[in-house]
Amino acid sequence: MEIRTISYECDGTTLTGYYADRTPGRPKPAILVAHEAFGMNDHIRARTRRLAELGYAAFALDMYGAEGFSLSEAVSRHVELMAAPGLMLARASAALDVLTALPGVDRDRTAAIGFCQGGITALELARGGAPIRCAVGFHPGLMRPAGSLDRPIQAKILMMIGDQDPDVPPEDRVTFAAEMQSKQADWQLHLFGEVGHAYTNPDADRLNRPGYGYSPSADRRSWLMMLALFEEVFEAPAAG
Amino acid sequence: MEIRTISYECDGTTLTGYYADRTPGRPKPAILVAHEAFGMNDHIRARTRRLAELGYAAFALDMYGAEGFSLSEAVSRHVELMAAPGLMLARASAALDVLTALPGVDRDRTAAIGFCQGGITALELARGGAPIRCAVGFHPGLMRPAGSLDRPIQAKILMMIGDQDPDVPPEDRVTFAAEMQSKQADWQLHLFGEVGHAYTNPDADRLNRPGYGYSPSADRRSWLMMLALFEEVFEAPAAG
Repeated sequence: MEIRTISYECDGTTLTGYYADRTPGRPKPAILVAHEAFGMNDHIRARTRRLAELGYAAFALDMYGAEGFSLSEAVSRHVELMAAPGLMLARASAALDVLTALPGVDRDRTAAIGFCQGGITALELARGGAPIRCAVGFHPGLMRPAGSLDRPIQAKILMMIGDQDPDVPPEDRVTFAAEMQSKQADWQLHLFGEVGHAYTNPDADRLNRPGYGYSPSADRRSWLMMLALFEEVFEAPAAG
Repeated sequence: MEIRTISYECDGTTLTGYYADRTPGRPKPAILVAHEAFGMNDHIRARTRRLAELGYAAFALDMYGAEGFSLSEAVSRHVELMAAPGLMLARASAALDVLTALPGVDRDRTAAIGFCQGGITALELARGGAPIRCAVGFHPGLMRPAGSLDRPIQAKILMMIGDQDPDVPPEDRVTFAAEMQSKQADWQLHLFGEVGHAYTNPDADRLNRPGYGYSPSADRRSWLMMLALFEEVFEAPAAG
């Protein structure tokens, strides 16, 4: 397994992503992984390695050029990012460019996945018309950042939400469905009952925040749904 | 493959289900299949055989003791059934009893699935406290029939709906979520964008009814989601 950090520039900011590839140089589909508002962390690095173990090239992008935020700092960073026109898409696109230029990456078979804020990131790539085959969100936000584009969506969309997620109220789901419908996207929205925000993150309970919590069943089910969509859009299981 | 009809009684009415089992007598999980308002038909028989090919014992129940209805007759039968207190649950329970008494059926590992009205049937078993491991609905109705019970739900619930399904308006989804939430059920609700009612039924387009239509992608995806839940609740793939 090759595991390394890769630094890259976006509009003068240095960002440092995390790359994992079990069979370097051999052709395979590639997955871009977008982190939560907390920035890159062990949860995201572990997911990235897990994808690599399944045979994908996996690259966790860096949205901030920094990491290790407290909850309050994560919230203020998130608010700034959402208010900066086009910034999220620009940084995600820069990371996708890095990924697709790597040896062995099949640039015609890519996907973006994201957790929490990272779900918005994956959606922004789709809304920006990126040639990814699917965009998958785990407890994603469904609000749109400033400057969000309305290009034709090429990616198949799968968003998976805890029904009790306080950060994704029902009205956001309605707005999202109407947007996807108006764009004639191939979209799916999955609700896990009795589940809150950050259900994939084993550290979520430690935040001690109402409506946040880890759910082993939603974690497992959502991961399998993602893999099923990968098999569909890549027309094969992972590349051994 | 053993394929046969099985007749049984429920409160004086003779019902005739359809049973399929690839390896008769060998122990295996068993699936009860509930038909649409049209009654038993080739779509349901084909699904039942498909489950048997995967290694499950599969039994398509008969809700009416008759079949081959026109659309208008199906609608009036459906309305009558929904208004008859407890009738749907009684007939579904009778069929489940038939299934679990068959040789080779592991009575501790059963599930109920249903299409359209059959989704309601599967839910009624769950609401009635039936010891099924899961209840799966394909474009299910979410309204409750007369006399619907509120026993503790043992089954894991998975309902998969076309977002454009005219028979399952958003308010029904909200009511359903609130009911499941109040019962602390393990529940999931999946929405397929750009998809209408009867998406699993290749004959749906011929009904020429607004909002009804076959969707190959939703058909395929929903079937895979059901199989993933079977693997989860039965703790194994089908019994070879």
